[in-house]
Amino acid sequence: MRRMKETSQQAIGIFDSGVGGLTVLKAIRERLPSERLIYLGDTARLPYGTKSPASIARYAEQATRLLNDRQIKLLVIACNTASAVALSSLQKAMAPLPVIGVVEPGAAAATRARPGGRHLVLATEATVRLGAYRRAIQAADPGAEVRELACELLVALAEEGWTSGSIAEDIIGRYLEMAFEDGYRTDSVILGCTHFPLLRESIRGCLAADVGLVDSATTTASVVSDSLTERGLLNTDGHGELKFLATDGVTRFARVGGRFLGAPLTADDVELVDI
Amino acid sequence: MRRMKETSQQAIGIFDSGVGGLTVLKAIRERLPSERLIYLGDTARLPYGTKSPASIARYAEQATRLLNDRQIKLLVIACNTASAVALSSLQKAMAPLPVIGVVEPGAAAATRARPGGRHLVLATEATVRLGAYRRAIQAADPGAEVRELACELLVALAEEGWTSGSIAEDIIGRYLEMAFEDGYRTDSVILGCTHFPLLRESIRGCLAADVGLVDSATTTASVVSDSLTERGLLNTDGHGELKFLATDGVTRFARVGGRFLGAPLTADDVELVDI
Repeated sequence: MRRMKETSQQAIGIFDSGVGGLTVLKAIRERLPSERLIYLGDTARLPYGTKSPASIARYAEQATRLLNDRQIKLLVIACNTASAVALSSLQKAMAPLPVIGVVEPGAAAATRARPGGRHLVLATEATVRLGAYRRAIQAADPGAEVRELACELLVALAEEGWTSGSIAEDIIGRYLEMAFEDGYRTDSVILGCTHFPLLRESIRGCLAADVGLVDSATTTASVVSDSLTERGLLNTDGHGELKFLATDGVTRFARVGGRFLGAPLTADDVELVDI
Repeated sequence: MRRMKETSQQAIGIFDSGVGGLTVLKAIRERLPSERLIYLGDTARLPYGTKSPASIARYAEQATRLLNDRQIKLLVIACNTASAVALSSLQKAMAPLPVIGVVEPGAAAATRARPGGRHLVLATEATVRLGAYRRAIQAADPGAEVRELACELLVALAEEGWTSGSIAEDIIGRYLEMAFEDGYRTDSVILGCTHFPLLRESIRGCLAADVGLVDSATTTASVVSDSLTERGLLNTDGHGELKFLATDGVTRFARVGGRFLGAPLTADDVELVDI
């Protein structure tokens, strides 16, 4: 599938079903401000979480092909569901292009910080059902304990932009009560949904000071940086151009996406693509 | 497309993209307990709100065909988006089968109760964008004033089952503040999303006593009852059998659907169909 040798000037491709992965783009941009980034949101077919694994794998493959046609040097699957279902098959299909998901970096960071510890993964219902964090954490640290909690309302809160204040805190508090009601004491909380970094401060405020908070956006950005460094493909003198693609609803993508990016976007900034 | 004359023993078909339309099924069942009801949730392709009108119309036609093959005597489009996009074309295609949407009954009830009044429609972003309630209300009552507000968090609240208590009240209160912040005084509030009847009591509690509350589930049930009575097709001695069909995720359909129905459902109660 690859056609040429990568150079440091090429872009990093980032793919998600919607706008959530923009938190990963933002973290990569903060870490690697010179890199060109191309983001694809497959908004026509979201949410992936309710689709069959075969469909999700097909969508992820089509998205990957589109980004690959734009000459990327590394691909980030910034979608928990697609990472859980399709990461290893995409890594094989795209080799030697590095393909990085969002699940393993978060799981690795959490187990490194608290070996043999107890972890609480906050995620969507689909991610919990797929059990990808549980598998990744226990593969990295067989002595770890894992609890997963589906927190669907946090997705809606992030999309609505109500990320701080009493409503956000009450909802987060209620979910944490559910997670801890049987006395489970966790060493770390993993934000296992790309929407949740927007709620990071509110979640931090609901946790004891000794509980670690692992954000899969920043941990994924670290893994991207390490991978490019290792291959000699870091771009240190670029202008950090951003390109946004969406498969439907560019107006909504721009409006909600701006919240995730932390900077205003207009529909003109988003190219409508067909895959 | 029709093959035979309807009889009162035939079922009423009810169609939605997901579980939300079960509030309409519940209202029809309360009003007409002897009727056989067949419900189809097109869960494989939800949400319709982010899809193009051409796709929504195609999905609604396919769903209608499937229900028609099961010999229904009346069809309810218990989905605001599909009602807004496809109602009139389905009415033409299926004639003489009566096809009833959820938008017009709510709009008619609100304008009848408060002629020349001011209305606030609480709905999803997709329904607001389509402007179907605005058009239906102003067609029924050109002197009416209409304000529409997208309340996405209420959908997530209803699906999570957090329909009463301080979190629900605070979220509803925040949305109503947004609707009224410029001093708009409304005569009625229309629940323009099939999820919102679950929040009816909490919404009622946030409104002044003289504000009317119009629930499109119960108003649609009244129109269904009137239509069957008019055609001599009311079933008064049936056993009220229920049949549930879904195009994906029968386990989630049963779990969340039980909340909407107000009675437990298991995956065995839901038939997986392909359309």
